[in-house]
Amino acid sequence: MDGDVAAEGRRGRRGRDARRAGRAEADRAPATPYIARKVPLTEVLSAEGLALIEANAETILAEIGVDFRDDAEAIRLWREAGAEVQGERVRLPRGLARHLLKTAPAHFTQHARNPARSVEIGGDNTVFAPVYGPPFVRDLEGGRRYGTIEDFRNFVKLAYVSPHLHHSGGTVCEPVDLPVNKRHLDMVYSHIRYSDKPFMGSVTAASRAADSVRMAELVFGADVVAANTVLVNLINCNSPLVLDGTMLGALRIYAATNQACIVSPFILAGAMSPVTAAGTLAQLLAEAMAGMAFTQLVRPGAPVVFGTFVSAVSMQSGAPTFGSPEGAQMLVAAAQLARRLGVPFRSGGSLTASKMPDAQAAYESANTLQPTVQAGVNFVLHACGWLEGGLCAGYEKFVMDADQLGMAAVYARGIDLGEAAQALDAIREVGPGSHYLGATHTREHFETAFYRSALADNNSVEQWEADGSHDMAARAHALWKRQLAAYEAPPLDPGIDEALQSFMAERKAAEPDSNV
Amino acid sequence: MDGDVAAEGRRGRRGRDARRAGRAEADRAPATPYIARKVPLTEVLSAEGLALIEANAETILAEIGVDFRDDAEAIRLWREAGAEVQGERVRLPRGLARHLLKTAPAHFTQHARNPARSVEIGGDNTVFAPVYGPPFVRDLEGGRRYGTIEDFRNFVKLAYVSPHLHHSGGTVCEPVDLPVNKRHLDMVYSHIRYSDKPFMGSVTAASRAADSVRMAELVFGADVVAANTVLVNLINCNSPLVLDGTMLGALRIYAATNQACIVSPFILAGAMSPVTAAGTLAQLLAEAMAGMAFTQLVRPGAPVVFGTFVSAVSMQSGAPTFGSPEGAQMLVAAAQLARRLGVPFRSGGSLTASKMPDAQAAYESANTLQPTVQAGVNFVLHACGWLEGGLCAGYEKFVMDADQLGMAAVYARGIDLGEAAQALDAIREVGPGSHYLGATHTREHFETAFYRSALADNNSVEQWEADGSHDMAARAHALWKRQLAAYEAPPLDPGIDEALQSFMAERKAAEPDSNV
Repeated sequence: MDGDVAAEGRRGRRGRDARRAGRAEADRAPATPYIARKVPLTEVLSAEGLALIEANAETILAEIGVDFRDDAEAIRLWREAGAEVQGERVRLPRGLARHLLKTAPAHFTQHARNPARSVEIGGDNTVFAPVYGPPFVRDLEGGRRYGTIEDFRNFVKLAYVSPHLHHSGGTVCEPVDLPVNKRHLDMVYSHIRYSDKPFMGSVTAASRAADSVRMAELVFGADVVAANTVLVNLINCNSPLVLDGTMLGALRIYAATNQACIVSPFILAGAMSPVTAAGTLAQLLAEAMAGMAFTQLVRPGAPVVFGTFVSAVSMQSGAPTFGSPEGAQMLVAAAQLARRLGVPFRSGGSLTASKMPDAQAAYESANTLQPTVQAGVNFVLHACGWLEGGLCAGYEKFVMDADQLGMAAVYARGIDLGEAAQALDAIREVGPGSHYLGATHTREHFETAFYRSALADNNSVEQWEADGSHDMAARAHALWKRQLAAYEAPPLDPGIDEALQSFMAERKAAEPDSNV
Repeated sequence: MDGDVAAEGRRGRRGRDARRAGRAEADRAPATPYIARKVPLTEVLSAEGLALIEANAETILAEIGVDFRDDAEAIRLWREAGAEVQGERVRLPRGLARHLLKTAPAHFTQHARNPARSVEIGGDNTVFAPVYGPPFVRDLEGGRRYGTIEDFRNFVKLAYVSPHLHHSGGTVCEPVDLPVNKRHLDMVYSHIRYSDKPFMGSVTAASRAADSVRMAELVFGADVVAANTVLVNLINCNSPLVLDGTMLGALRIYAATNQACIVSPFILAGAMSPVTAAGTLAQLLAEAMAGMAFTQLVRPGAPVVFGTFVSAVSMQSGAPTFGSPEGAQMLVAAAQLARRLGVPFRSGGSLTASKMPDAQAAYESANTLQPTVQAGVNFVLHACGWLEGGLCAGYEKFVMDADQLGMAAVYARGIDLGEAAQALDAIREVGPGSHYLGATHTREHFETAFYRSALADNNSVEQWEADGSHDMAARAHALWKRQLAAYEAPPLDPGIDEALQSFMAERKAAEPDSNV
């Protein structure tokens, strides 16, 4: 279709009712600030297979148990709940974890400071959040380097301007230029100041989790925070079968204040779990159930998410691999296990071991993102920006993945079967041997017809060569630079800003800088 | 895992029975020279939605009709079958096409000259065949250029040596250095001489289809060809709603000799079909049903495949786009329609509009390949090597995609739930807080545990830099060169070779070179 047709389409577009006499299988308009999936789920295990994994997880919990380390309060709570406790080892009688999880909500709202951006986590919904945790950043111009608070702010801004990201995330990169014991303040502040999307709290110490809650109270009001979930927080298990004191401390702060914990076994199969999918699934289910059940001991009804980060190590080098078929199988199976447990599920993303935004990065990321979306993952951390097995956040990769997230959303909305979409009149009008480029139906619908990639080059080879023969990474470099240059911060009440600044100043003055 | 553990594993690997006391959800060993899928299918439309599309397709066939051009015999057969014929326009009363298709087999065997490589097309099976049709080729060293018979042979050899390709394909590239009216002889010969996998016949003229059958008879024996399917052949529709004389001529030759036709609407939605998925699906179903039903008029019981090549044009430039969410939706929905019709289905591949093997090529290819595999496509043309919307066959892209096909096969085999895979003893042995790298179970299973990519770099950034900071395309360049250098032709009976050579010489001498 050439530009003339597009212009003609705009002129000729009649304001007639978008009446839908036919049935609509899916509503194409994104009415929610997250994905409300309309297509059927992809599965990989039968009900019988899932029951086998569940039985094995119960065996692991009952016979082997899970270590709850350096947290006397956790041990006390477990003893009270009827677990068999020896030192830090907690063995859960069959059925106890599943019983405790009956109080966990099937879905919950995470409120954003802009109510239009609040997200519903669980059910048929999918929320995309950016990369989490990399100490390094990379872009085509500056190469690979340690992340700084400026990089952190840049990624928050890029997530804010992307219509395809529903969440601002958490540690979008480590601001290594700030002291470890204080950087959480600047990270949480950056999410609040430079975005109005929902965000994550700090988990690196109980005191930092408490600071996160306090800052949220300054933004939302203490009464709102007491009654609602405004923070989602990543609690990793130390697989195999350990929850450490740092994570337990943060978990207890968040669960007690009704903020959401994502309890995530972090597993490279072959190293932290058996070298098979079935063994890994049983172990990760046991770990997730133990950690999630513990949130319900702290506060029955506290929102909790079944998290899974699972990949395989290379059996040749010991290095983590991503985008593997076994990783996809385990992701889809874990989503099935979470649904049977009745809790929201976190996994997936755009994962890769590649060091640069090349074809390896794209294949591996797509191989993770596709099962993520098709398995109905509810909260997708690392949805964009991942490089190098999570050690590095890539600027070009960030906007390349974001474009893919936009496509995933269109896929998940399903096929419109309304009368206009059925297009029988158009087929009658055009008939055999002609074309649809100038057809009335085409002119009326082309503007919303197909997803428009911001980065794909669909031109002829001649045009592409005339444009400089750039690869996608080069186009992505230009795009994120344009996006940052055009960024405008969302409004923030000056009184709230001041309160946040003075809280941060006070907390920073309270102790010397430290890098632990 | 380091090299020592690997070596130890080999030494320590005991020859104990691979007894499977537990239930196995899937058999991981590839017992067939194609993929026998064990995982559930992905779907995108409900039964109600599919019925709506089917009703619209019947409306199109009955009210609008399909043009069968330049083929008086086709018109005669349709008139006899009860269609309403006006000139070349054939209108099929509701239900006629579906009724005629009752004689089409649900699946069939395509025999290879090496019986161990014969493939089963249909049912739960998936067969991967390489790129088809590009006039240009590209590699990192030689750049983009017209394809030659040497390139053609190279791609046949690369498909032969890859364990992930089940089929040698057809026009892996156009050998532009040979005259159009004779190149089909060298193409078919190359598939026979340089591979022993199943292959495709020529469709560019009825006489060339007949030559393809004759050459197959020289290889398999005329009696074998008469009783079996040894050729699969791509019959494209001229969408919208036209089958032209060239394609009909080839179709009639193949169907009459019991060779398989893939009747494929070739649709860029917005240009050759309505700008919506629902409209496009109804049209492509109508086209496929009309063409497939025609094969049953020629010879009831002839093997036929429901083909679909569907993508969207850019509504900005008119250029074809690939890897789009709408393309994936239409692919999955068409697979559902084919299953309801009870015939094998062809679609998918590793499609991209990118001019080079960059991230765009990989995202788009993965976005096509994943739904292809998950929707249970039976015959996957363009499974590897596609660049530039099909105008160019890429050497690096060929081996990069082939690596992805290997991963897809592992995914499709599903999760092993046998007792050894459940690994409960391993979890007991390791317990909380340790690791699995040296565990007995790991040592016994690591060699077959995870798919090993030939091209992914999973090393540390330091190691990757020490190795030259190569992207995947550079590694792919080295790989295909190594593969071609190591290629050894499969044995071919010298008598058969001589018969083929003399048939070709005779046919070439029979008419002057021509480029039509």
